[in-house]
Amino acid sequence: MIDASNSPLTTDLYQLTMLAGYHAQGMEDEAVFEFFVRDLPPGRNFYLAAGLEQLLDYLEHLRFGEAELAWARESGRFGDDFIDYLASLRFTGQVHALPEGTVCFPDEPLVRITAPLPQAQLIESRLINLLHFQTLIASKAVRCVLAARGRLLVDFGLRRAHGAEAGLLAARANYLAGFHGTSDVLAEPAFGIPVFGTMAHSFVEAHAHETDAFLHFAHAQPDNVVLLIDTYDTERGARRVVEIAPRLAAEGIRIKGVRIDSGDLGEHARRVRAILDEAGLSETTIFASGNLDEDRIHALLAQGAPIDGFGVGTRLDTSADAPYLDCAYKLMRYAGRPRRKRSEGKATWPDAKQVWRRFDGQGRMAGDTVTRADERVEGEPLLVEVMRDGRRLREAESLEAIRARVREQLAALPEAHRGLDPAPPYPVTISAGLRELAAALDREAH
Amino acid sequence: MIDASNSPLTTDLYQLTMLAGYHAQGMEDEAVFEFFVRDLPPGRNFYLAAGLEQLLDYLEHLRFGEAELAWARESGRFGDDFIDYLASLRFTGQVHALPEGTVCFPDEPLVRITAPLPQAQLIESRLINLLHFQTLIASKAVRCVLAARGRLLVDFGLRRAHGAEAGLLAARANYLAGFHGTSDVLAEPAFGIPVFGTMAHSFVEAHAHETDAFLHFAHAQPDNVVLLIDTYDTERGARRVVEIAPRLAAEGIRIKGVRIDSGDLGEHARRVRAILDEAGLSETTIFASGNLDEDRIHALLAQGAPIDGFGVGTRLDTSADAPYLDCAYKLMRYAGRPRRKRSEGKATWPDAKQVWRRFDGQGRMAGDTVTRADERVEGEPLLVEVMRDGRRLREAESLEAIRARVREQLAALPEAHRGLDPAPPYPVTISAGLRELAAALDREAH
Repeated sequence: MIDASNSPLTTDLYQLTMLAGYHAQGMEDEAVFEFFVRDLPPGRNFYLAAGLEQLLDYLEHLRFGEAELAWARESGRFGDDFIDYLASLRFTGQVHALPEGTVCFPDEPLVRITAPLPQAQLIESRLINLLHFQTLIASKAVRCVLAARGRLLVDFGLRRAHGAEAGLLAARANYLAGFHGTSDVLAEPAFGIPVFGTMAHSFVEAHAHETDAFLHFAHAQPDNVVLLIDTYDTERGARRVVEIAPRLAAEGIRIKGVRIDSGDLGEHARRVRAILDEAGLSETTIFASGNLDEDRIHALLAQGAPIDGFGVGTRLDTSADAPYLDCAYKLMRYAGRPRRKRSEGKATWPDAKQVWRRFDGQGRMAGDTVTRADERVEGEPLLVEVMRDGRRLREAESLEAIRARVREQLAALPEAHRGLDPAPPYPVTISAGLRELAAALDREAH
Repeated sequence: MIDASNSPLTTDLYQLTMLAGYHAQGMEDEAVFEFFVRDLPPGRNFYLAAGLEQLLDYLEHLRFGEAELAWARESGRFGDDFIDYLASLRFTGQVHALPEGTVCFPDEPLVRITAPLPQAQLIESRLINLLHFQTLIASKAVRCVLAARGRLLVDFGLRRAHGAEAGLLAARANYLAGFHGTSDVLAEPAFGIPVFGTMAHSFVEAHAHETDAFLHFAHAQPDNVVLLIDTYDTERGARRVVEIAPRLAAEGIRIKGVRIDSGDLGEHARRVRAILDEAGLSETTIFASGNLDEDRIHALLAQGAPIDGFGVGTRLDTSADAPYLDCAYKLMRYAGRPRRKRSEGKATWPDAKQVWRRFDGQGRMAGDTVTRADERVEGEPLLVEVMRDGRRLREAESLEAIRARVREQLAALPEAHRGLDPAPPYPVTISAGLRELAAALDREAH
């Protein structure tokens, strides 16, 4: 079976039929495409660029292997000449991008591809597939980070993520946005992301007595004793923890925490906190999970729930309130001429572009301007060249470096945009040069 | 890089910490777990079981390879004895399941796993990950199939699916539900699913004139001429198709269809149909795409839009109105004793179960009963044994066989449940035997 994550056949058929057309016409001039988001989902104030490293990996390794060429031959859709062309096809282009973890807004290109037309075209499907998903998830995760105000945050979403790759890439997007780790084991060997985990209800149920389950778990994982106490009755579970704590302490085992996964999490946390504190277990933390998202985390903390950490799963890894972004990858220039799609409701700003960000005297973001790539306006340019001639210009960025960037970016956000509530749109201006170009292209319309 | 789709590390860490606990205690008795959905998403009347073949593949090939064992060693979490145990671990259990494409309802197990406790536990995360996603997507896709009343339906969702595996498995789920094919090329070599594709706006924009783009595409793909006509002005695009049709016809090339991807699809389709018909191109079909789902398809056909086929993408492959199902995989029996989780709002019916379906005199579904596995009640049992001792009991079912089952199942659905509007809940009864068992377990509570 071909590995979907690494195959050039993870693409839409029309890319190949278009390539055949370009090939037949010898249309191999330089094209510029850009990936951008058209609109923020309702209630969101910004998004966080993510997924670039996976895109660069894909571009560096793009090639049709034997299995893929065999499919192309057998499909009967293509001539031998075109199949030979596919066999030799590599990505030799240039990539400009917002560094991962950059706060960004609609109409701002996250990635600009400059390459011979067939290459820039072929990569569209997987490019969107990679950038869209991690940007989607990181943009949701960062809202949890803002809501949790420093509490421990662990991604629990693997099981309801849309497949294994979605679980793994969601773990990465969550971590770069500021989560402390994930339950998805593979994220550790794949990305060096810390993994977290305790026990499920089935572990408790498999034992005749809840107390035995707690003791067995503590003995098997003495450095990581977090006990799930809601299988039968949450407060009774907490009292059982209190009962066994001295016995485990005598063996040198400390109960690090308890987890609550059902019912009114705030109310249970208060009662459990009281039970633990009364027994002198004030160091034992309370970890909550179960259908959480940024709004529920915010509400729990606003009501003063004594919760030290949150496991956030399904609603995060599926971005349940907004399971997709309205994003696109569009041709902006071909053979030296700017291009513009004018389809109703889907018109694009033409030509290769740059984004410039201004800051006020306190280092807060004050507004962005989208310009033609060769214009210069006030501010810092955000898109940087990361690949040339199909080769990365630097090592892959570490996730720690990206996390540090996210912290800086969040500190620079206008106050209104850091909250969960909808803020007035952040000012993004389209430069006069870009507007004039669009108008000129419309005048000479087809 | 470890392949996420095929690694036992695509799991939650707590599975491994629990396994270490079970291993330390020698808890290897037979366990029964079941996967089920707790509630239908709002507005849905049933769901369609899917994903079983990928689960059986996963179970047959489950093993810790060198890379995974190296991770386990280096992680410092586990003793050598446990790591040796992981190295030899295989799935040796039994699987009962609803055949893929079976219509089903909340509280009915889709899959029952009977295996030594650690095996049945370890597989939880990926089992849910696989069954949840395809069941989610097939359950949405079948609504599109019902809405489209026989029109061509093509999955266009790869780019906004949550990763490459999601795109590929969504293509499979859509096809088994009754779609005609997908744009995801890999679905053809991977699953034999027909793939469809034409051109993007960028193909048109890369040409100086729209007409040249149409001609070049027709010459490059003479057997598959479907032209995208909305890049600049939909009706003008249709007139250009009319202009070139005689010239192409003279070369023996037929324009199979046109695609419209923006604006008021119904209104454009009517105008384009008139333009084509007037020019004698009544055989040229109209294919529509752009933000479609079952409700928009239904609305377009209800208003008589002359659309012959639909490309359905983002809203389908992300199941945008319900991006997850409230599903679970729970311990039902261990070491001969039925088990029951009683967490608030999440209580389960205990023990291994069977589902029995009754039909009326016309072959219409009349009601289901969920029983203990060893009970017998009126109706046909739906769960069948598909794996024993870790080996499939039959060849993988063909997608064509599953599609035929879906057609039969839809024909047997009560009329109210075939519509897109919410119907009264389909009758699912919990047997007296099961209720008595649950009550008895509650009485002897912990």
